[in-house]
Amino acid sequence: MTRVKAGMVLALAAGLMATSAGFAQQPEGKSRRRRVEEKPLELTPAQVTELTKVANERKLKVEDLFAAAKTYTPSGVMDEYVLFSSGGQSGQVFAIGVPSMRLLRSIAVFTPESWQGYGFAGDNDPVRAQMRINGRDVTWGDTHHPALSETGGDYDGQFLFIGDKANARMGVVDLRDWETKQIVKNPLTVSDHGAAFVTPNTEYVVESGQYATVLGYGYATPDKYKESYRGMVTFWKFDRAKGRVDTSASFAMELPPYWQDLADAGKGPSDGLVFINSFNVEMATGGVEKGKPPFEAGASQRDTDYLHIIDWKKAEAAFKAGKAEKINGFPVLSLATSVAEGLLFFTPEPKSPHGVDVTPNGQYAIVAGKLDPHVTVFSTAKIRDAIANQKFSGKDEFGVNVLAFDAVKEAQVELGLGPLHTQFDDKGYAYTSLFLDSAVARWSLGGEYASKHPEKPWTLVTKTPVHYNIGHLCAAEGDTVSPDGKYLIAMNKWSVDRFLTTGPLLPQNFQLVDISSGGTTMPVLYDMPVGVGEPHYCQMIKADKLKSWAVYPEVGWNPHTQSLDPNSPKQGKEGVIRDGSQVIVNMTAIRSHFTPEHVEVNEGDHVTWRIVAVERTQDATHGFCIGGYNINLSLEPGEYQEFSFVADRPGTYPIYCTEFCSALHLEMMGYLHVKPANAVGSK
Amino acid sequence: MTRVKAGMVLALAAGLMATSAGFAQQPEGKSRRRRVEEKPLELTPAQVTELTKVANERKLKVEDLFAAAKTYTPSGVMDEYVLFSSGGQSGQVFAIGVPSMRLLRSIAVFTPESWQGYGFAGDNDPVRAQMRINGRDVTWGDTHHPALSETGGDYDGQFLFIGDKANARMGVVDLRDWETKQIVKNPLTVSDHGAAFVTPNTEYVVESGQYATVLGYGYATPDKYKESYRGMVTFWKFDRAKGRVDTSASFAMELPPYWQDLADAGKGPSDGLVFINSFNVEMATGGVEKGKPPFEAGASQRDTDYLHIIDWKKAEAAFKAGKAEKINGFPVLSLATSVAEGLLFFTPEPKSPHGVDVTPNGQYAIVAGKLDPHVTVFSTAKIRDAIANQKFSGKDEFGVNVLAFDAVKEAQVELGLGPLHTQFDDKGYAYTSLFLDSAVARWSLGGEYASKHPEKPWTLVTKTPVHYNIGHLCAAEGDTVSPDGKYLIAMNKWSVDRFLTTGPLLPQNFQLVDISSGGTTMPVLYDMPVGVGEPHYCQMIKADKLKSWAVYPEVGWNPHTQSLDPNSPKQGKEGVIRDGSQVIVNMTAIRSHFTPEHVEVNEGDHVTWRIVAVERTQDATHGFCIGGYNINLSLEPGEYQEFSFVADRPGTYPIYCTEFCSALHLEMMGYLHVKPANAVGSK
Repeated sequence: MTRVKAGMVLALAAGLMATSAGFAQQPEGKSRRRRVEEKPLELTPAQVTELTKVANERKLKVEDLFAAAKTYTPSGVMDEYVLFSSGGQSGQVFAIGVPSMRLLRSIAVFTPESWQGYGFAGDNDPVRAQMRINGRDVTWGDTHHPALSETGGDYDGQFLFIGDKANARMGVVDLRDWETKQIVKNPLTVSDHGAAFVTPNTEYVVESGQYATVLGYGYATPDKYKESYRGMVTFWKFDRAKGRVDTSASFAMELPPYWQDLADAGKGPSDGLVFINSFNVEMATGGVEKGKPPFEAGASQRDTDYLHIIDWKKAEAAFKAGKAEKINGFPVLSLATSVAEGLLFFTPEPKSPHGVDVTPNGQYAIVAGKLDPHVTVFSTAKIRDAIANQKFSGKDEFGVNVLAFDAVKEAQVELGLGPLHTQFDDKGYAYTSLFLDSAVARWSLGGEYASKHPEKPWTLVTKTPVHYNIGHLCAAEGDTVSPDGKYLIAMNKWSVDRFLTTGPLLPQNFQLVDISSGGTTMPVLYDMPVGVGEPHYCQMIKADKLKSWAVYPEVGWNPHTQSLDPNSPKQGKEGVIRDGSQVIVNMTAIRSHFTPEHVEVNEGDHVTWRIVAVERTQDATHGFCIGGYNINLSLEPGEYQEFSFVADRPGTYPIYCTEFCSALHLEMMGYLHVKPANAVGSK
Repeated sequence: MTRVKAGMVLALAAGLMATSAGFAQQPEGKSRRRRVEEKPLELTPAQVTELTKVANERKLKVEDLFAAAKTYTPSGVMDEYVLFSSGGQSGQVFAIGVPSMRLLRSIAVFTPESWQGYGFAGDNDPVRAQMRINGRDVTWGDTHHPALSETGGDYDGQFLFIGDKANARMGVVDLRDWETKQIVKNPLTVSDHGAAFVTPNTEYVVESGQYATVLGYGYATPDKYKESYRGMVTFWKFDRAKGRVDTSASFAMELPPYWQDLADAGKGPSDGLVFINSFNVEMATGGVEKGKPPFEAGASQRDTDYLHIIDWKKAEAAFKAGKAEKINGFPVLSLATSVAEGLLFFTPEPKSPHGVDVTPNGQYAIVAGKLDPHVTVFSTAKIRDAIANQKFSGKDEFGVNVLAFDAVKEAQVELGLGPLHTQFDDKGYAYTSLFLDSAVARWSLGGEYASKHPEKPWTLVTKTPVHYNIGHLCAAEGDTVSPDGKYLIAMNKWSVDRFLTTGPLLPQNFQLVDISSGGTTMPVLYDMPVGVGEPHYCQMIKADKLKSWAVYPEVGWNPHTQSLDPNSPKQGKEGVIRDGSQVIVNMTAIRSHFTPEHVEVNEGDHVTWRIVAVERTQDATHGFCIGGYNINLSLEPGEYQEFSFVADRPGTYPIYCTEFCSALHLEMMGYLHVKPANAVGSK
């Protein structure tokens, strides 16, 4: 009746699709990138006419055509950079290709995400276990500041660290498989600034606090603010070989209850120092409900706050020498110790700064005071000198020595309203976001950078308007020892009218800015709506530095341990093993079936389910779910997972592959039969 | 010391930022779209040279330049279409602008999502409550088939329905605020096909099952398959005025334990009918672990499966006449009743089909049999005739009358390997995805469409390769009574080498295909990586049909009830009310402070927290979180939310705005003080 090609159907039906047959058109290895045309492109007059017609039909301007040509990335051509962006209160990290500005992937960190099978592995899910705080499931995060691991002050493409401001946690992502391996909860504070910054060889990941609390999750009313509340900075020791933070080798420092903000580590001549901004040195405690000034006013009264300067190498030595005290079981260098040992200094910085950013050569730390139209440039050599020679202008209320501003200041540059954050390029320019101006400012650096650009040192060169209300910005490798220039991302907080209205909740707007020319040319090339979270900060790495795995190294790989798992089921040895009410399921998954297809258990059984994807082809991912049981896995080629649950709901439950894997994907299913307790034994 | 513009700082500090001051550059109303240049674009020879240079630097080909010009969408220019795509096992829906292929927004449905504050409102979260199945939190979904509401067979832009295949649920999204309003659990089955299809005036949302189970969440071993397992289709009655499914006016039909698949409703002359595909009429039960053929082989033995033809208007009448029986409390028309009342008919359809798609004029239903190289065209008039005149070729094993294939078949068109799903344009063409060929086929319709195109009716016109393994496809308004043509999306399941390797888990690839020309021209314009889920199906609506709210209608709006909430706190009346251990917090949020800023409760208190965003400016969204307490809200302008929790963890917890709202956003904070039980009364 229907003329079916019998051979094909038989082949499919016989399960030959279980191998990679049928997945045509997958180039291998070297030929993966599209071959470059030998002959350069030339436009004929007819093509110019036609292109002009297309442009006019879409009401494009000449500059739009250029922006299109500078960003359009054809099928199979790879982006040059990857932008790792925090996802704000989505709790995730987003990886975005540059210059195409396409969201390549989300990486789940603090919030369970079922596409990645992250946090949906039953009762003893190791991901969920790490999310627990004080016995409570805290299944979201507010990711603010991702930090790529560094070697010699340059991104090495190995790991990514990301903080959770809301709950003072830090996640560790392994960039071989782009999965979160560890979540560390700060034992001192409930919330921080979500800051994660690394020292130049990723010796430590620096987590700076934000809103002062009673360290160790304590309680105190605001009238006890000065005596009971404290800030903190934590130095998480990173074990690169294990790919994990070593909490036992980590320590913290007590800080005054100013609100610490962004941090940056010194490099080159300033290696060994960490800089942290602060605001609310007023120690305002709000209380608008009692007729007091709200925090926004109370914390903005003084002209200056304190830039915190920490000698982390000396602090590490003090910690190792046993000079730390324990708070909530965690070693903390007290303020008194820090002062006595010369670990901590302040210097005044303009009013309510947000970003502190060290120049690539390590010679300057630049502070953007958001309520001050200037950026302030501090000389790290002068800071070292002022520390060595005790050029103090006094002490703060907690006894910390304050370096004389004039002794450490190099320059101040007036840029405009609301400067927040500064990045760098390869031409001796700095770029600062201006929140209130809704603009990116390019300005010239001085010192040894002065010879790299034609402008006068320390001067504003140009501003480009952005849309709207830019928070952070990010230049290509723009906070490393060797920035690339080329591209800059303006991370705009509001989009308002830039995109279609998506209900009352609008996307943010990442704008790609072309910084490849110097001088006053700095066009916006592309608007990217970000409608999956509210990113705060990002870092942009050259794509070829990433050495991602295409598939897991071996079949049976456990991504939680990053090693071959001895429990991984073997093909031919699948089945169900029962020991009393303890049941172990050993299952394999391959296009297009699970083995076994039927799993029978009794109501109340404790089920441990082991499953491995026996696939070696890139992109041959399977899913695995149990309907109604809140279980979903993503099983990438070679991946092994174990999950467990109590079979407390009787019934016959479909199990199926949730990732469309082959033409017979819909047939890749089975059933979990949970025999009702009242029927057990009656079969 | 630092030269600060005193006026600005004072204004900021005094809280004037609390109004919309400081948010410059936000055009209002009519001028929101970028003004079109009066003069059409013309490229000078120098510009052509420069453009060619840019293209060559980026190794673009001529066709790439054209594709760039056809897709690049400048800042502030709106996309012409919105693609609503399922997010697969992410549990969400994604809205994508076309032709720019930018992800505008995620809409959380079955999986809690913290950026949207969806499912993070404490103990009695109405969202989480709806996610519970059988007392268990099922906090993810496998969204497959979104359906836009229709009026007269055309999208009306009011609502979006989306199914959860894994757990047999359906979500209702209100497209005024793009939020999920309702999740309905199917009481008959644990998992379905995630299908949501509407009748032409959205009288019903049709949910077809997939893997047969024991209806009512029952249990039976596979040897009882034929007698105990059943398929189903559910007709959810939609109350448009309430914007909710009326479960009390909904019903289902028992179906044989074939695996039902996609569905489509008739329109025009076929209005009143619903078509549902099926596969596994073999009733294979797998059992590869026992040496039986796996499901993939067992379910692919016969040459034909059964297209289900349901007269839903007669079924509705039978339901209203009380002819349904109750299963798990839900009315179900039995197979016997359906046969006796003439509600259900079958006709053979080629082997293991996936899509059944009704042409815009309602005259044909097109079935793509994925293991058959043809699409089969059924005439809906012939189907009506065959039913009326009992042109049966027999009955199936369950007594359902089978319409003679030759009596209802109009044509068969050979297209290639693995046809899955068909959509339509405005020029008399159909488009079918070919999974195994990795191609989109354009073919010519016959009947009254024959005069619209130059080709012979019912013939293949051309194929365009896509990358790789296309599942569904979607043309602009391509399943309505009046398709637009222009654009088609190829929803490719594998991306392999199209993008940078993002670890072993790769994005899917949406390719934008230009279908504006007829004939053999059908270029791919754009590759969009989808790295936030695995979409299955989408619908593309003209953007100007959406009447989204820019802000909530009034301050105090409760999005759960879509009405003004009497409990919404009033400015000036904020505060904390205590009644024993019951505490009510009334809080307002406005740039840049919460009132009150301090909330003091006792350990163990039951806290009900009411908060409203007193904002009327578009995009002036606030967040609200309590560190460590797993609470985060997104408060769009005017929005009111209530949440509750037990203050069971003593300590001082920062609360803060999680959406960067103003220059003094970081100062928009406060503290929740939970006084330890052992200190209560000792103050």
